[in-house]
Amino acid sequence: MPNPTAAMLVIGDEILSGRTRDSNMYHLAGELTRVGIDLQEVRVVGDEAERIIAAVKALSASYDEVFTSGGIGPTHDDITADCVAAAFDRHIDIRDDARTLLTKAYEARGVVVTDERLRMARIPDGAALIDNPVSTAPGFTVENVHVMAGVPKVFEAMVASVLPGLTGGTPLLSQTWRVQMPEGEIAGPLRGLVEAFPELSFGSYPYSLNGVFGANIVVRGTDGAQVDAAIIRLQEVFPND
Amino acid sequence: MPNPTAAMLVIGDEILSGRTRDSNMYHLAGELTRVGIDLQEVRVVGDEAERIIAAVKALSASYDEVFTSGGIGPTHDDITADCVAAAFDRHIDIRDDARTLLTKAYEARGVVVTDERLRMARIPDGAALIDNPVSTAPGFTVENVHVMAGVPKVFEAMVASVLPGLTGGTPLLSQTWRVQMPEGEIAGPLRGLVEAFPELSFGSYPYSLNGVFGANIVVRGTDGAQVDAAIIRLQEVFPND
Repeated sequence: MPNPTAAMLVIGDEILSGRTRDSNMYHLAGELTRVGIDLQEVRVVGDEAERIIAAVKALSASYDEVFTSGGIGPTHDDITADCVAAAFDRHIDIRDDARTLLTKAYEARGVVVTDERLRMARIPDGAALIDNPVSTAPGFTVENVHVMAGVPKVFEAMVASVLPGLTGGTPLLSQTWRVQMPEGEIAGPLRGLVEAFPELSFGSYPYSLNGVFGANIVVRGTDGAQVDAAIIRLQEVFPND
Repeated sequence: MPNPTAAMLVIGDEILSGRTRDSNMYHLAGELTRVGIDLQEVRVVGDEAERIIAAVKALSASYDEVFTSGGIGPTHDDITADCVAAAFDRHIDIRDDARTLLTKAYEARGVVVTDERLRMARIPDGAALIDNPVSTAPGFTVENVHVMAGVPKVFEAMVASVLPGLTGGTPLLSQTWRVQMPEGEIAGPLRGLVEAFPELSFGSYPYSLNGVFGANIVVRGTDGAQVDAAIIRLQEVFPND
């Protein structure tokens, strides 16, 4: 059976303007590879309702799982929850279970529960809450869309809350062999290896270090013995001194 | 006149598998903001022809400029040039001008011009070459799509080659005010400011540092005097000790 597929939607003007360097994509990509869910597409859009709604609909229809990051805080630019509700034609309002969570946590810390803070209890009807052990305000899952915070520490905690409940596949294994030779000379012999192992994927990632050209050849596959065999062949074809 | 719009397409399995952390998106986002071109969407897809072709078509039709990163080297997984040609129904083959560039550079370095290296001279009919001062093999522009390398140093050099030829808009200015107060308490007063400056955009980016919660409030706009005025109001509403 093929692995489940996934897409990610990163939401936020701060990524598109170059103010913030996204790290959530890199984190999620690694975690999904580990559990055997194939991340096949990522989209980044700004804080604009129409674009968010369109992206949620398109990705939800095309992939088994969708993960969103950003736009679920208490301020005016946090519109993700409402957009996801709109994408699935669901009613959204402050929900009692989420309100209770927030109220209890704030009272324990002696913090005033403002109207703005309660915005974070706005959850679409029928959604399941995603636990947030870092700062309480929950994420949520509607159908196949998992809505999570943009702050990296919170995003990572929510990913850890969600993943155990999903059906994974066969984890993708990878090994790397570094070849100290320009990619243009690697390409020919590498093509032979690619043809000899049709079930594996080979990536070639060139680098230059102190003026010396080389490439990291990454072999990926779900069968560890095959990956091992390919790496041994690589070492024979491209021995390092 | 509104600023020109742009999208970016990042191509490569290594990003989606979590092996590599993309840096080209962050670089391009900053450069486009500087020249007044609004980056409105980014997509990341793997090394699969169908997906690349579909994304090039969709983004080229929706935005003024499209920038791609990755998949134009000499190895079997470098299929971007062929996909872009297919997206625009153009013939592609080794082109004399690109071949001459490569041959001269390789000969000067005493490097053999292999068939695989010549793959990098495959350029769609009618495309304009993009200068690559780092490693010679050119990128190219077809219609509104600028096809560039994935290796960050080469990507950055190609961006520098392309941008001066594009029509920019009014650069987006931004200033940041750090508020040492939890976002839930900032949200209410901030809403009033957002309404007072309808031409500016306000972003709120929470952080926690040594257990203290705060947020960076970023004011963005094209009118420097308005941005200044908003920052002064922010400082009045949220004074720091």
